[in-house]
Amino acid sequence: MPMNAMIECVPNISEGRRSEVIEAIVAAVRAVSGIRYLDTSSDADHNRSVLSFIGNESSLRQAILALYRESARWIDLRHHKGEHPRMGAVDVVPFIPIQNVTMAECVQLSRDVAADVQAAFGVPVILYEEAASAPHRRNLADIRKGEFEGMAHKLQTAHWQPDFGQAVPHPALGVSAIGAREALIAYNVYLNTNNLAVAQAIAKAVRGSSGGLAHVKGLGFLIEERNQVQVSMNLVNFRKNPIYRVQELIRIEAARYGVSVAGAELVGLIPQDALLESAAYYLQLEGYSRDMILENRIQSVEGAEGDGL
Amino acid sequence: MPMNAMIECVPNISEGRRSEVIEAIVAAVRAVSGIRYLDTSSDADHNRSVLSFIGNESSLRQAILALYRESARWIDLRHHKGEHPRMGAVDVVPFIPIQNVTMAECVQLSRDVAADVQAAFGVPVILYEEAASAPHRRNLADIRKGEFEGMAHKLQTAHWQPDFGQAVPHPALGVSAIGAREALIAYNVYLNTNNLAVAQAIAKAVRGSSGGLAHVKGLGFLIEERNQVQVSMNLVNFRKNPIYRVQELIRIEAARYGVSVAGAELVGLIPQDALLESAAYYLQLEGYSRDMILENRIQSVEGAEGDGL
Repeated sequence: MPMNAMIECVPNISEGRRSEVIEAIVAAVRAVSGIRYLDTSSDADHNRSVLSFIGNESSLRQAILALYRESARWIDLRHHKGEHPRMGAVDVVPFIPIQNVTMAECVQLSRDVAADVQAAFGVPVILYEEAASAPHRRNLADIRKGEFEGMAHKLQTAHWQPDFGQAVPHPALGVSAIGAREALIAYNVYLNTNNLAVAQAIAKAVRGSSGGLAHVKGLGFLIEERNQVQVSMNLVNFRKNPIYRVQELIRIEAARYGVSVAGAELVGLIPQDALLESAAYYLQLEGYSRDMILENRIQSVEGAEGDGL
Repeated sequence: MPMNAMIECVPNISEGRRSEVIEAIVAAVRAVSGIRYLDTSSDADHNRSVLSFIGNESSLRQAILALYRESARWIDLRHHKGEHPRMGAVDVVPFIPIQNVTMAECVQLSRDVAADVQAAFGVPVILYEEAASAPHRRNLADIRKGEFEGMAHKLQTAHWQPDFGQAVPHPALGVSAIGAREALIAYNVYLNTNNLAVAQAIAKAVRGSSGGLAHVKGLGFLIEERNQVQVSMNLVNFRKNPIYRVQELIRIEAARYGVSVAGAELVGLIPQDALLESAAYYLQLEGYSRDMILENRIQSVEGAEGDGL
């Protein structure tokens, strides 16, 4: 993997209430050389925090060891309560390719990190998403079913042997899912109606689980302060199901009810490519590539200079 | 101006044939510390080259001095022939704000550079575009009218006194235009017809000079190998006349003839914002900002670390 590989890591830890604990864990990650720390988002009801940072292979391996070391000092799942399902103190560790790195390299990194974690802390690891060792082990919700309390039994079953470590959860740290995936885009489309049934029917038409686009998850909600309904989605692979296709499919389905799209919103960060590819679609750009973007050209010049080329 | 200001400079020099001359001039610019060199594009018919590089205020001032020094060694306009209008060995020097810098700061830089050039080489300078000292001096084509051969007379007239230096062209280097402007986007839209009159009528409807969008220049052409016509444009201020507005206006005008948009193409580099803002329009994104782009967030973290914050 090239030294200038840029990989995002978005671990979820089972602590969202004790700010001194969250700060100590974040500080341990930040202290690792080569890590660029982006964001922490904590939820007290869920009792869970989502960390976000960037690094190359070497710095991320160190950062995850530091993350587990500090989490092990503070988190004991035997005493953890929260609304969000969880099975580990460090519950899930996804690696996301950003620049100068392939998905296959992120899969390899997730396997190396899983081996590190098992060796250093004795936490059994199930590989998930692109790193999964079998199709039924891709989906995080399926892996986590039964939660921490059910893992001692679940790991013994033929389908759920861990990929790394013995089939026995760590007493305090439980089990971790480690893997690789595309960036997830949280995307909501508002409709010019307050009829919840319309949003629910459209969500059902577009989401993969009910026969729509394979990499879209979606639900319909009524947003009272707008007096509009919302199709709330996670786009889990924007390369295979680009935003424009999702949006235009919603537009077409809404037309059946005489309803139009009122607006849309992104929640959190989005990779540049996801929006640029939608621009290229709507503008009918021929021969478009991300190298045509001035800032990307500048960065590739910088990268080349950084390597002494 | 912050140290991490990122400004593009795209000087046009009056040499597009002698490769050893072009290489020597490019090498002089590249040798300046802090310059990231992007591109050289030479045209033998025009006998002209366009250089493109990035730097901050300090490195760009040095780079332009190096550019003139090396150009003065090789180029004498008294012996220059080419199709493209020109008035100086270094004909035009625009500064374009890219990141962490305002247009006002680029205008100030262009004034400082003009003073440098006049002091070091005795070349009279007319400020243009955003740096122009009067409205009739904004447009490069108006400034250059009369070309090198007519400048001795033109500079004597009340309207065309140079902003820096005496009203006498340099014998070999002529006169330079130095200024600041937004990034220029070369953008072509193809139509599903081979009727040239349609493209010409649409170009007339959208371009500023005939009453259309103020910051659009455009002409209609027949592209024989596609058997389609093209509206060929320069978008000289994509913030005031965004791409989607230009494209949708063309679509509306084409509909009058029963003609549709067959495709579009970018020529050269385009700032990220120009495409992202079109994506935000078509997707009806509410509350969109460039900080939502993952890569931009990473870069702002890097910038902050680079400053030791």
